[in-house]
Amino acid sequence: MSGTTRFGVSMDAQLLENFDKLIEKKSYMNRSEAIRDLIRASLVETRAENDEEEMVGTITLVYDHHVRDLSEKLNELQHAHNDKIISALHVHLDAHNCLEVLVARGKARDVKTISNELLGVKGVKHGKLVITTTGEELQ
Amino acid sequence: MSGTTRFGVSMDAQLLENFDKLIEKKSYMNRSEAIRDLIRASLVETRAENDEEEMVGTITLVYDHHVRDLSEKLNELQHAHNDKIISALHVHLDAHNCLEVLVARGKARDVKTISNELLGVKGVKHGKLVITTTGEELQ
Amino acid sequence: MSGTTRFGVSMDAQLLENFDKLIEKKSYMNRSEAIRDLIRASLVETRAENDEEEMVGTITLVYDHHVRDLSEKLNELQHAHNDKIISALHVHLDAHNCLEVLVARGKARDVKTISNELLGVKGVKHGKLVITTTGEELQ
Amino acid sequence: MSGTTRFGVSMDAQLLENFDKLIEKKSYMNRSEAIRDLIRASLVETRAENDEEEMVGTITLVYDHHVRDLSEKLNELQHAHNDKIISALHVHLDAHNCLEVLVARGKARDVKTISNELLGVKGVKHGKLVITTTGEELQ
Repeated sequence: MSGTTRFGVSMDAQLLENFDKLIEKKSYMNRSEAIRDLIRASLVETRAENDEEEMVGTITLVYDHHVRDLSEKLNELQHAHNDKIISALHVHLDAHNCLEVLVARGKARDVKTISNELLGVKGVKHGKLVITTTGEELQ
Repeated sequence: MSGTTRFGVSMDAQLLENFDKLIEKKSYMNRSEAIRDLIRASLVETRAENDEEEMVGTITLVYDHHVRDLSEKLNELQHAHNDKIISALHVHLDAHNCLEVLVARGKARDVKTISNELLGVKGVKHGKLVITTTGEELQ
Repeated sequence: MSGTTRFGVSMDAQLLENFDKLIEKKSYMNRSEAIRDLIRASLVETRAENDEEEMVGTITLVYDHHVRDLSEKLNELQHAHNDKIISALHVHLDAHNCLEVLVARGKARDVKTISNELLGVKGVKHGKLVITTTGEELQ
Repeated sequence: MSGTTRFGVSMDAQLLENFDKLIEKKSYMNRSEAIRDLIRASLVETRAENDEEEMVGTITLVYDHHVRDLSEKLNELQHAHNDKIISALHVHLDAHNCLEVLVARGKARDVKTISNELLGVKGVKHGKLVITTTGEELQ
């Protein structure tokens, strides 16, 4: 929707100098790109506070696949939410440990509930939810 | 390494009651499991502060694949770090937007640098790094 | 509200050993105290997600008091919310910079709004809200 | 050091529209001010990752002053770090609960250690550290 627009930003020269150093450190191509990223991160964060918004979440899980019935339980939980869990990636970290990343899409509230359920399963050692965007509202 | 051990925790009855409500809300099976999860999260968090520790990171990226050369650039960056990027999952969010989750393994410092490089690419709309564990130190 | 209660927690011996190291590093007196702290932090975090709960917030602001009208604006804003802002601490960081910490009490929603208003004032260089507890629900 | 400078930022019109809504919601005066705030927050965050940088921290503590010897212990700890703890604010939340906000200044590493020590004292119900700036590097 729409084209590119341009506007001016005023800033103390010293602040801009410090920002330019940060841009270099963080490997941004230019100021506009760095500023767009800050703005988008701030939009996603604010949006995710609203439990009714449609969001995408990636759920990272680390677990020991030797724990009895664990894989089955995680699998069942994922199937129970098959309308929201889009995809999964599995990595074998070592002889015992697995990492799984699930991508879920739905209301922020539902994505958080699914994540809580998975992280609460006995045998899951660590887990974390990242709420991100469906991409639609961020040009 | 080793077996299961058991120890006593003392707590005000009211605090325990509130914790039990949280356990139910977060779908934990029992107190031990909920406490183990809090402990593991706290261990991972502390460990990740040390840039020299070996960690696993999942990097979530949302981008518009119609942006010229973007897929190529992301691909190239990943190949430049092929010793650290283990695996990738790609999801088509809609006609324009892609979500990619990469799993990277290495020193916390390196995982953060890779994540910064990828998030800094023009056209990446949103991204986030989750630092998690290799699983080894968390029984 | 009640006395002290005691319950058992089971854990892999290796996980407990790692936790004991963390306890020492973080200067906790014993395991119970460390676990109670993890539980309380988790309760406060969950509670603060509910915008209708009564919470206490501390708002940290750093600003340059030479910016024209800034002190007056911050002062006015605080007075406009005098039913919620309980107290303030002012520190002179150097010839230019002031740090102010405000303590606000009210619904999480209102505390967040007040914080946003203050942090949005031109001349405020950095600011951050910490949502904490009224203490009532945490024994 | 220095005057004000101005530069152009390009952005998709839709993204700018969404940002303008956020600006209104967060009560910012204009785009420049909102962008400066995002930049400064990002600078403070990156700087605080370096344990050797001089920073200012505000440490929020909630505790029950009826816990035996607690006030004395907190007081002693503060005096042991009197070269770094600049100031303190005390609020009586109710008959039992106190909130204390301490302002500490020093290397990020030392401010974190002081915070850990205080939060680890038995009887402290909740606590949180905010790392902010001395103001010098942020114009």
